[in-house]
Amino acid sequence: MSAPIVIVGSGFAAYQLVKALRKLDAGHPITVVTADDGHEYSKPDLSHVASRNQRADDLVKLTGAEFAEQHNVTLMTRQTVERIDPVQQRLELADQQLSYGQLVLATGARAMVPTIDGLAPNDIMTLNSLGEYRQHQQALLDAQSVLVVGAGLIGTELAMDLANGGKKVVLTDMAPQLLPRLLPEFIASRLHSCLSKQAVTLELATLVEIAEPQPQGYHITLANGHQHHVDAVVAAIGLRPNVQLARQAGLRVNQGIVVDQQMRTSAGNIFALGDCAELDGQVQPYLQPALLGASALAKTLLGTPTDVVRANTLVKVKTPQLPIQLAGDTSRSDAQWEVKVDAEGMTASAFDTQQRLIGIVTTEQHMKNAFPLLRQLPIG
Amino acid sequence: MSAPIVIVGSGFAAYQLVKALRKLDAGHPITVVTADDGHEYSKPDLSHVASRNQRADDLVKLTGAEFAEQHNVTLMTRQTVERIDPVQQRLELADQQLSYGQLVLATGARAMVPTIDGLAPNDIMTLNSLGEYRQHQQALLDAQSVLVVGAGLIGTELAMDLANGGKKVVLTDMAPQLLPRLLPEFIASRLHSCLSKQAVTLELATLVEIAEPQPQGYHITLANGHQHHVDAVVAAIGLRPNVQLARQAGLRVNQGIVVDQQMRTSAGNIFALGDCAELDGQVQPYLQPALLGASALAKTLLGTPTDVVRANTLVKVKTPQLPIQLAGDTSRSDAQWEVKVDAEGMTASAFDTQQRLIGIVTTEQHMKNAFPLLRQLPIG
Repeated sequence: MSAPIVIVGSGFAAYQLVKALRKLDAGHPITVVTADDGHEYSKPDLSHVASRNQRADDLVKLTGAEFAEQHNVTLMTRQTVERIDPVQQRLELADQQLSYGQLVLATGARAMVPTIDGLAPNDIMTLNSLGEYRQHQQALLDAQSVLVVGAGLIGTELAMDLANGGKKVVLTDMAPQLLPRLLPEFIASRLHSCLSKQAVTLELATLVEIAEPQPQGYHITLANGHQHHVDAVVAAIGLRPNVQLARQAGLRVNQGIVVDQQMRTSAGNIFALGDCAELDGQVQPYLQPALLGASALAKTLLGTPTDVVRANTLVKVKTPQLPIQLAGDTSRSDAQWEVKVDAEGMTASAFDTQQRLIGIVTTEQHMKNAFPLLRQLPIG
Repeated sequence: MSAPIVIVGSGFAAYQLVKALRKLDAGHPITVVTADDGHEYSKPDLSHVASRNQRADDLVKLTGAEFAEQHNVTLMTRQTVERIDPVQQRLELADQQLSYGQLVLATGARAMVPTIDGLAPNDIMTLNSLGEYRQHQQALLDAQSVLVVGAGLIGTELAMDLANGGKKVVLTDMAPQLLPRLLPEFIASRLHSCLSKQAVTLELATLVEIAEPQPQGYHITLANGHQHHVDAVVAAIGLRPNVQLARQAGLRVNQGIVVDQQMRTSAGNIFALGDCAELDGQVQPYLQPALLGASALAKTLLGTPTDVVRANTLVKVKTPQLPIQLAGDTSRSDAQWEVKVDAEGMTASAFDTQQRLIGIVTTEQHMKNAFPLLRQLPIG
């Protein structure tokens, strides 16, 4: 029997890899070690729990046990990997050791938690995993009003969803616009205007100065002097790749775990995939790079070294009142935009000063233009 | 001596006509009859009094007496024309009669005042003339917070100016966007986002349900349930041409006083000019049509019948944080827009379904593109 492929993590990247492996080889031993329950769920749905009034259990597509059975993997849940021993090719868990033939780190990323005067880290919800949502679901669903800190992709999606779920929302960011790293001002403004028409108060170019706990909820004071009462505080200020295990094992780590075109870390038979991996200097915490990585990595792990297909990632901003898809470099201040707008939506193309297409943004019904345009975008 | 040209009104249109007449003829007798003081002032500046902290007197460029002397006109101030007698060619004032050779009605338009439960008409400020501002200046400059009813051109300019003047502003309109008759949503949203970043709360797609007078200011409840305290209420919901005199004299009146291409009403030697006039089915309460009308009418009045030069009106939205100039048909829902955007601003061209240019909008530094584009716009 071949030495097992051991995957650490049970998120989207890990499970896409399992599926890709199983398409190629029904029998190769695979062990998944995860700190949580190993349930398969649709992570993007975490941005829509309020409007759909869903609990964590509602998001589960397959329980860990079901997934393990369907895909013929050994699933070890609630297991924390304490150390990797690259020489012995062994993982140390709390009370056992686990040998691997090849190891894949799909340890994901964790939501950063801002330091807010007056709040303990536990008072600040994050929604980057089913487990985090399970922990906070009651408080979040019960809240009449929510402060969302961070107006990037997740924060903006959450704010709109909470408003669609009937809650009053305050959305705040240090940046002067929504999605500052993803959208030019003239499109971010459309989202801004959309959100303002819902029960979302936008507080941009400011930050939370202090949160004073009240008998119920918090009294929030912003640096701009505005005050709000909210029942709950959610942070979506960004992700930090989980690199501790890799770093401790002496693997090369930058922002994420550095991998080559075959998702191989600096240690020959250790790979990294998904939100924890850094390829070409970039951590891309999106579904599509994880999918493409899993597909190539499955072949590599099964004996056919295969480079990851390089493609521009189509990022979807799942804000139902103004859905947006974008790709490439869409927030450069020196970009020159050519935009077509009609009653159906907007198609915007960004060019650099040499008139080269560098990014695209499509909205609403125009999202059907995204794929054809994506093909014209040079792969960068 | 020739029979005098009598002009009723002393606003922009009236005084542009005086200047145009005087360029052509220094001596022809001209009488201006006005219900106010006849001061010459820059009316667009009424949208900027809060940020500049200006009183009515600060806006006066020439007093009535100075204007009359400089332009060699007989100025009759504080005189209400009670009736026109077209047969006798005579105006009836309160205590005298005034014969005319040719009569020009430049009676302007009056700001409409919304009916708001809890407010007397006098509680609602309008700023459509120097006199109205003089009446309200103290209350407006003293107010810490202002409700602006109406998010058209004037309401939006006022809201931004009041915010720039350090006041908290609530801007409300029944329409779901700013400047609904002048801007497409994707540009109105940029203004929306701009205003939100100032101290302006936008309450769109709603209306004022009730205003309850307080010891200081008013407690406002909107139909959407939101409540605000404001010190003052300003209305900018639109203009209604002053047509009473014309109607009573039996002239043809539609929305405005109907005039032909020479600004002639249905009575041969009575003309109408400015915000009270309707040409080709349109009342155009902007500076440029008044200027073009005055220029042609001066020649007509002095014996050379001259058609008004037809031109597309360049409308300026004087919102300093996002200045905009537009022309043509810029709010049609079936328009197809082609837009160029860069760090300097936006140039947007609207096309109809036959790919004909029908409107243009330029913003910020791109406003330099407005005139060249205006020339490409078919005159409609």
